[in-house]
Amino acid sequence: MDYQVYFENQREQHLNELKEWLSIPSISALSEHKSDVLRAADWLADSLAKAGLENITIHPTEGHPIVTADHLHAPGKPTVLVYGHYDVQPVDPLHLWETPPFEPTIRGDKIYARGATDDKGQVFLHIKAVEAILKQEKELPVNIKFCIEGEEEVTSPNLPSFLEQRREELAADVVIISDTSLLEKGKPAICVGLRGLCSLDVEVTTANTDLHSGTFGGGVPNALHAIVTLLSTLHDDQGRVNVEGFYEDVPELSPEMRAEFVKQSLDENKLQQSLGLDALYGEEGYTFVERTGARPTLELNGVYGGFQGEGSKTVIPKEAHAKITCRLVGYQKPQDILDKIERHIHANVPVGAKVSVIQREKGNPFTMDTTTPMLQKASDAFNHVYGVRPVLTKDGGSIPIVETFGRVLNVPVVLMGFGLPDENLHAPNEHFNLDNFDKGLLTIVEFLKQV
Amino acid sequence: MDYQVYFENQREQHLNELKEWLSIPSISALSEHKSDVLRAADWLADSLAKAGLENITIHPTEGHPIVTADHLHAPGKPTVLVYGHYDVQPVDPLHLWETPPFEPTIRGDKIYARGATDDKGQVFLHIKAVEAILKQEKELPVNIKFCIEGEEEVTSPNLPSFLEQRREELAADVVIISDTSLLEKGKPAICVGLRGLCSLDVEVTTANTDLHSGTFGGGVPNALHAIVTLLSTLHDDQGRVNVEGFYEDVPELSPEMRAEFVKQSLDENKLQQSLGLDALYGEEGYTFVERTGARPTLELNGVYGGFQGEGSKTVIPKEAHAKITCRLVGYQKPQDILDKIERHIHANVPVGAKVSVIQREKGNPFTMDTTTPMLQKASDAFNHVYGVRPVLTKDGGSIPIVETFGRVLNVPVVLMGFGLPDENLHAPNEHFNLDNFDKGLLTIVEFLKQV
Repeated sequence: MDYQVYFENQREQHLNELKEWLSIPSISALSEHKSDVLRAADWLADSLAKAGLENITIHPTEGHPIVTADHLHAPGKPTVLVYGHYDVQPVDPLHLWETPPFEPTIRGDKIYARGATDDKGQVFLHIKAVEAILKQEKELPVNIKFCIEGEEEVTSPNLPSFLEQRREELAADVVIISDTSLLEKGKPAICVGLRGLCSLDVEVTTANTDLHSGTFGGGVPNALHAIVTLLSTLHDDQGRVNVEGFYEDVPELSPEMRAEFVKQSLDENKLQQSLGLDALYGEEGYTFVERTGARPTLELNGVYGGFQGEGSKTVIPKEAHAKITCRLVGYQKPQDILDKIERHIHANVPVGAKVSVIQREKGNPFTMDTTTPMLQKASDAFNHVYGVRPVLTKDGGSIPIVETFGRVLNVPVVLMGFGLPDENLHAPNEHFNLDNFDKGLLTIVEFLKQV
Repeated sequence: MDYQVYFENQREQHLNELKEWLSIPSISALSEHKSDVLRAADWLADSLAKAGLENITIHPTEGHPIVTADHLHAPGKPTVLVYGHYDVQPVDPLHLWETPPFEPTIRGDKIYARGATDDKGQVFLHIKAVEAILKQEKELPVNIKFCIEGEEEVTSPNLPSFLEQRREELAADVVIISDTSLLEKGKPAICVGLRGLCSLDVEVTTANTDLHSGTFGGGVPNALHAIVTLLSTLHDDQGRVNVEGFYEDVPELSPEMRAEFVKQSLDENKLQQSLGLDALYGEEGYTFVERTGARPTLELNGVYGGFQGEGSKTVIPKEAHAKITCRLVGYQKPQDILDKIERHIHANVPVGAKVSVIQREKGNPFTMDTTTPMLQKASDAFNHVYGVRPVLTKDGGSIPIVETFGRVLNVPVVLMGFGLPDENLHAPNEHFNLDNFDKGLLTIVEFLKQV
């Protein structure tokens, strides 16, 4: 039977199953939902078994379990590892949901529920694609492995060590992740770069106590003056990061990648207006999508010190704080960048101030080799179903686990996402467009058959 | 009878009376103490009457009352106006008081209670000095007026208009205020300058919402970058205020005043150590006492924006805030300085940022003409009792009402204070040294007889 017809026949059954899964409130961040997260893992295991997968295992971790399964009966054929997650974000503010987050509801051509697109709905496509092929053809054209975790929404604390320990069990020729979006309706995209991340806190201290600005003002250092002076040295007048060596490992954009960025045809004026900005802002010589996708940043995320209440308080604060994150690209290494920033800070300590730096997160940037055949196969599959080749994008955000998969398993990672950018991930009224539900099933089948 | 003997005889009686007054919790800032503040005014009025003063009036205001009294039977002699306040600061943290703040207690040579030195204790000296002279000599060597308010600790909102309206009733040849300190034990001081004050809030906004630093970082302005850049322009590398015209109305220090500052013989190293500072800091060419007494400042009292919690949040904040106060000297006018700062800020708005400024407080600096005979008379009185002439100081703090008295009544104001700098004004365990209680009475009598 033609797969399109098959999936049409099964559609109601599939959506009812997905609704079952979506009705389990597997919120990984909230300890009171620990048993719900476990229930969602159990449901997933049952569903994988029903689809015909084997060696289904629920691996306990210090947090929530990781579920693995495989089907390895295609000797000589490539092995595809599917990664995804079955945990979901918290749902507050609850009153903004039109229907309850864990009562999945179809309205028009969308299914509404927490996790509908991020990521239960997209993981579900892979299970049903495998099930469809096994039902129709009794065998798979590839070897397949699933590795679905329950802690993605809490930054995957237990997955990296799991990958390291099971490097061989999880060995594959490609990792497929469906947790990203099309560019817009009808315009598929494959993200071939994710920025890395590093973060640090800066503390400036002066006196051992806050001081009265009448008695001491003009005669002692002020922690706020010091931090403002210090932080203002981190960028030059054009908004470029002013830290020595910061751009050393940033590759220039290739003409090919620039052409891909142009294809996104982002309307910068419209974006500017929607954000209420007088002007977009950033490094000269780059467009907005280039700046946010392929250029590194150093952002102040928090600065605070002294009095914040109503009116005024004539205090000279003894301490001031800054929280800083960087987005990294290319070959920038978080540790190296943190060290460079720390050196810059210590070299620019204002008179009378003591400065301490705490280094925090470190996530590598992810860059996909755009010439790898796996990428072309995925692109072909999209083209086959959507009638258009996906645009290659670089996403400004950071999903450190993507880089971890590629590095630890030493394979290409293809971000073959079926969401849309406006599906309210992490927000009220999360939903998944059923058009992409249908096309996603077909795209995955096509990919597995062609790879 | 010799006044020293008289005051020794009366000492126990005087201290018991003062304890009565100090036991009334006249906290002007707290509405639940409104009736206590009124009780303290009543007590004051009774005490003034008992001392022999006349025309005792409790003037209601929109807040707490002002008490006036006079004794005007010395035709051809100067008129002295005594200003002070009978309201006190809140007492928290209560658990740090060794004895309850409103149970006055004498330990060693100090009387402990809220208001002991600030300012009931010091006002009390004037009442008892007048009483002593009237009891002993049946007449006063001068005309005297009292104007004692109940809102000094809440920035005297109703006193300026009261002074304006009663300019003639309150006319005098000198205003005496006992609400300041000796330099240290045995070293009297007369403060001949108080810095003025002005304050403003700055708000920087960028987008209409906080933005994700992955998706938008590097492509949009960041309110924290903008405010840090803006605020860093307010001072030059040497810590001088970088606002055009800021120092225009600041007189250079006279050699005479510099000599007075030297007499304070402040140990800068000791101060630096006690504050835990690597270095004192401020304008080159000035000592600490000159910087804080006779030079203007622009201080950041609060700066805040973005995330302040634990860990990191990859947000690009849409707004950031700063609270700024200036201390003013010489002929600097608060309105003029605020306008200059506002012009500077608007001239230095970073790309992509919108900046708004709210002007707040405005208090003129106070400068006493050091050649006025009234100052010499006060100095003589101190010398007579303490055996040493007072040092002339300039205080870095601001007491706008001092400037208001001088300006509205057009007379010299002499700050003849009997406190000590470590008597815990506004803090737990406030006290008043009885040595200065005794000497204060004699000094005031001496001043009234010589003026």
